[in-house]
Amino acid sequence: MRVEIWSDIACPWCYIGKARFEEGLAAFAHGEQVEVVHRSFELDPNRAKGDTAPVIEMLAKKYGRTVEEATAMEEHVASNARAEGLGYRTEGRDHGNTFDIHRLLHLAKARGRQDELLSLAYRANFAEERSVFDPEVLVTLAVEAGLDEAEARAVLADESAYADDVRADEREAAELGATGVPFFVLDRKYGVSGGQPAEVFTQALQQAWGDRAPLQTLGDGETCGPDGCEVPQVKGDV
Amino acid sequence: MRVEIWSDIACPWCYIGKARFEEGLAAFAHGEQVEVVHRSFELDPNRAKGDTAPVIEMLAKKYGRTVEEATAMEEHVASNARAEGLGYRTEGRDHGNTFDIHRLLHLAKARGRQDELLSLAYRANFAEERSVFDPEVLVTLAVEAGLDEAEARAVLADESAYADDVRADEREAAELGATGVPFFVLDRKYGVSGGQPAEVFTQALQQAWGDRAPLQTLGDGETCGPDGCEVPQVKGDV
Repeated sequence: MRVEIWSDIACPWCYIGKARFEEGLAAFAHGEQVEVVHRSFELDPNRAKGDTAPVIEMLAKKYGRTVEEATAMEEHVASNARAEGLGYRTEGRDHGNTFDIHRLLHLAKARGRQDELLSLAYRANFAEERSVFDPEVLVTLAVEAGLDEAEARAVLADESAYADDVRADEREAAELGATGVPFFVLDRKYGVSGGQPAEVFTQALQQAWGDRAPLQTLGDGETCGPDGCEVPQVKGDV
Repeated sequence: MRVEIWSDIACPWCYIGKARFEEGLAAFAHGEQVEVVHRSFELDPNRAKGDTAPVIEMLAKKYGRTVEEATAMEEHVASNARAEGLGYRTEGRDHGNTFDIHRLLHLAKARGRQDELLSLAYRANFAEERSVFDPEVLVTLAVEAGLDEAEARAVLADESAYADDVRADEREAAELGATGVPFFVLDRKYGVSGGQPAEVFTQALQQAWGDRAPLQTLGDGETCGPDGCEVPQVKGDV
């Protein structure tokens, strides 16, 4: 079974939802038969690269609140994160364009290090004093995730590298009906939206598992099996 | 859309089927939205490691034929391979246990080099004078595919490395009803068995694409979108 998770590194419910999903997956009996793939979704795709602003300030402006009220909003999210054992600093975080991070996550996917880089990037953005909008921080995270430094630098320097992969993920999210993230898709059949409690994920996994149907055969040609290969013309001579 | 292909490096119809599938995929209008994953299937899992024998001799024994007749069987397969532009030597090839190759293919999958290694291993086994049952040849192929030499050697030296992944693929093949390879599974919904003509693959891809259904929603929780994040308790205060 396969679970695809659309998320943005700037999305706190994605950070929290990832932990809750993993908890739900750990409680699912066939967890070792579940493959997880992370997909790109930008919350703010039109924001200029390099244009960053403090999260609290952005929240106050967006919701017409005082800095104290915006801090309270962040505290609410932080309490959810901390309940999952995740670090969350409510002050000093920046908001910005995440396109380059998504491109780097696609390099990591191609090198089998996607989950590692995503976890490190979430931690850097939400728990640590490191800005994921600083290219040097991204290079450090890439190396910590097991990527080659020169390759990570080359991807960051070339704005077209993995750009189509990011866009393709985003197009698919729209086609599947996702308007926000995190968005979880099980075997392209079921959708779970949001940073749900772990039990919701366990139940969704159980339902998707139980509903697996036999394959419909669209063609049956020459194969090899334990008893040998099919060689029709020659077999006909026996 | 995702296509999973179960195959064995020792299976000539898998070698031919891979080329035909790729041709069928190239003719499919949404090919760039298709993700291909290769999965393990051993034709001869009980054969002792290191026990290799010439293919022609094996065929003659298995089908009770003369060496000339077995060579004719190989020629039949070779003509199919050559029609796809693939090299195929009918003499001098060995047959043996492919478990280590599958383990190495799982390392390659984890490093994003699976298709590269599979293509190189097929070519070595069917077209070139290189035995894929020689661990040094496997190391060379791994390096040619872009893997780290030390990591490839470590996987080959540790018989437990990726062994569970090979077994998991094989268990899934059985659960999905595959008794021979190549076996193609489209979005876990449709199965195509055998080295079919390219058009069969194109048609299967078209059918699977056309039959995609909207997701069933199993949960709807807190998300972030272009307009901000949901912070219900605080929102309620407005």
